[in-house]
Amino acid sequence: MFIESDMKKGVTFPKGFKAAGVKAGIKKSGNLDVAVVYSEKDATVAGVFTTNKVAAAPVYVSKETVANKKARAIVANAGCANACTGEEGMKNARLMAKIAATELNCDEKKVAVASTGIIGAQLPMDKMEKGIKDAIKELSVEGGVNASNAIITTDTKPKTLAYELTLGGKSVRIGAMAKGSGMIQPNMATMLAFITTDANISQELLQEALSKTAEITFNMISVDGDMSTNDMAVILANGAADNPEITKKDEDYKTFCNALFEVCENLAKRIAADGEGATKFLTVNVTNAKNFNDAKTIAMSVAKSPLVKTAFFGEDPNWGRVICAVGYAGVDINPDKVSIKFGDVPVYEKGQGASHDDEALKKVMAAHDIAINVDMNDGDTDATVWTCDFSYEYVKINGEYHT
Amino acid sequence: MFIESDMKKGVTFPKGFKAAGVKAGIKKSGNLDVAVVYSEKDATVAGVFTTNKVAAAPVYVSKETVANKKARAIVANAGCANACTGEEGMKNARLMAKIAATELNCDEKKVAVASTGIIGAQLPMDKMEKGIKDAIKELSVEGGVNASNAIITTDTKPKTLAYELTLGGKSVRIGAMAKGSGMIQPNMATMLAFITTDANISQELLQEALSKTAEITFNMISVDGDMSTNDMAVILANGAADNPEITKKDEDYKTFCNALFEVCENLAKRIAADGEGATKFLTVNVTNAKNFNDAKTIAMSVAKSPLVKTAFFGEDPNWGRVICAVGYAGVDINPDKVSIKFGDVPVYEKGQGASHDDEALKKVMAAHDIAINVDMNDGDTDATVWTCDFSYEYVKINGEYHT
Repeated sequence: MFIESDMKKGVTFPKGFKAAGVKAGIKKSGNLDVAVVYSEKDATVAGVFTTNKVAAAPVYVSKETVANKKARAIVANAGCANACTGEEGMKNARLMAKIAATELNCDEKKVAVASTGIIGAQLPMDKMEKGIKDAIKELSVEGGVNASNAIITTDTKPKTLAYELTLGGKSVRIGAMAKGSGMIQPNMATMLAFITTDANISQELLQEALSKTAEITFNMISVDGDMSTNDMAVILANGAADNPEITKKDEDYKTFCNALFEVCENLAKRIAADGEGATKFLTVNVTNAKNFNDAKTIAMSVAKSPLVKTAFFGEDPNWGRVICAVGYAGVDINPDKVSIKFGDVPVYEKGQGASHDDEALKKVMAAHDIAINVDMNDGDTDATVWTCDFSYEYVKINGEYHT
Repeated sequence: MFIESDMKKGVTFPKGFKAAGVKAGIKKSGNLDVAVVYSEKDATVAGVFTTNKVAAAPVYVSKETVANKKARAIVANAGCANACTGEEGMKNARLMAKIAATELNCDEKKVAVASTGIIGAQLPMDKMEKGIKDAIKELSVEGGVNASNAIITTDTKPKTLAYELTLGGKSVRIGAMAKGSGMIQPNMATMLAFITTDANISQELLQEALSKTAEITFNMISVDGDMSTNDMAVILANGAADNPEITKKDEDYKTFCNALFEVCENLAKRIAADGEGATKFLTVNVTNAKNFNDAKTIAMSVAKSPLVKTAFFGEDPNWGRVICAVGYAGVDINPDKVSIKFGDVPVYEKGQGASHDDEALKKVMAAHDIAINVDMNDGDTDATVWTCDFSYEYVKINGEYHT
């Protein structure tokens, strides 16, 4: 369960983790921009990374860290994505890990790195070095708050959480921080999620749990359909909860997976809700599809449609755009079997508009959270995608300011 | 060649065609909204239609007309798409053809119909009947102008053309009118293109010529990535030019195909340039890809990216967003081999930003027509996609007004 009183602690909620966030001068605003998350002992590490063929330097470095299975720290910065930066960028990403490793007295292979911000600019390594050193000096169990602020860009608020579960009779904690779409200098939406836990679990199962969970949480959100060069979600499990190590797919593993799902779903929804310029949080539920792939493809087609997104911005119950996006999703569908509701108000069925209470529909459209429910009546598999509307502010954030 | 002095004539430029556009009261604005295009004798007909699984009633009826291979007329209206209208919608689409056929004294199977406008509303058939009858009374060789105005919605201008070529020693003409993305009540971008020619050509070759040409013209434009329920392109060839009938893929066929390509390319580019809220016309050239499918997929990924489109709206040379969209297109690429130019100014090469003259780049970004040139250096196949930028006006058109 989520521990409401400790939500802001984020990555330092589980036992044995410290963190810090400092101002290194990488963000033009002068805000916090370098974060370090530290595990007092070796943690098992797993990660999922962008599938963009143009991946940033820190993505390559952190993949190596995950391949080594053990990590002590994550170093992240905002304000510069270190993407499309060639050999110098790779050298700098490795240097981030090395500087931290030297200060923390650990193997540099045990440091994951992440960056978010403008593409194509080199990291200012003098500032970065000072920032990392400063952050490490400040590491504390209260530091989760600053760390979560140091990784955001145009996010309107940090996204942290605290979660508790029981494994093998022991109380186990999960903490996390994430950032969504936006830039100090608007550039590329980048999702970063860092999860810590004091659970004791094998690397193989930790990776499998994260990979499977990411598929149905982080991979089910869309702000503008632009997949970043820098996306990553990394989890550190340091075993400090002293539960018997999870090494097979038993009840404890299922319990852990359920907890991880709730954690990642929570972060994913908050990233979508805080999408650039968002005024509405939209949940697209596609139910009774032939299979998961069809359901997800249809839900994504609706969630990514600029016509759908601008309609919801305008509180216009324009179901024609929704069924149209269902129709061009590339899935073999029968439009006469599909029915669509906004909230619980029917808007489309049997190939045409459904009669409904206009006032009830108006109320649904005026709310901040709106569910677009698409029933395919064609199978038994569901998928949910989270997104936001498309507003003037999105155009402003991404068009008005210059790189 | 295009006949500049006759461009406005559009569909009535070729011999043997008449047209009219009238006000039937279907558009709320009270503007021209019903168009009839008439061939004095049976014309060979070919068509290409939306692949959206949710296709409008007129799409089904016009497909039948094309299957019958001969047509005398096209009846089209703006202001109501007759999409998602069930059995009543199908009946109304057939009735549009029947009313025209009765007045024109021809088989109703020889009338193609098209609609564009709001989804989900039934056609007001009393108004439609009067409109069709009025239009048929007004049919004339000058009527191409009114017809072209009757099919537009939020297009800022009608799109017509006149083209002349020589086939078998005879002068042959092609005329056309098209509409792009926009609605009187903002709803669904719909592309309609009607092409007339006095060329003498077999139905099979006419269809093949249109299908292949549409693939590399109409199917290469994107305003917002939303594929309409109503898209169609229909061509009527009445043979009045008296050229020897084209029945095989000889030189005349090639000449005709080249002319048809120029005609369709011209319309496609103008539809993209007049996209909703557009302030820039963007040409995305992907060169030296492994194959056409890869080249088109990459070009579409760039053309549809909201981040790319808002950057160009803001005249921000944000090449990071372009290479990012190349990277997530779903094609296996090597980012280090790719080079990108905006106009003729290099912005990305060998995995990072390219040095360039900032003033020259500023000039490129300030222009109305901008080429985004992506060289994959990975093969020998090219593809070009035409699109526009994403502006406040797009959000306004599609979000501010209500259905």
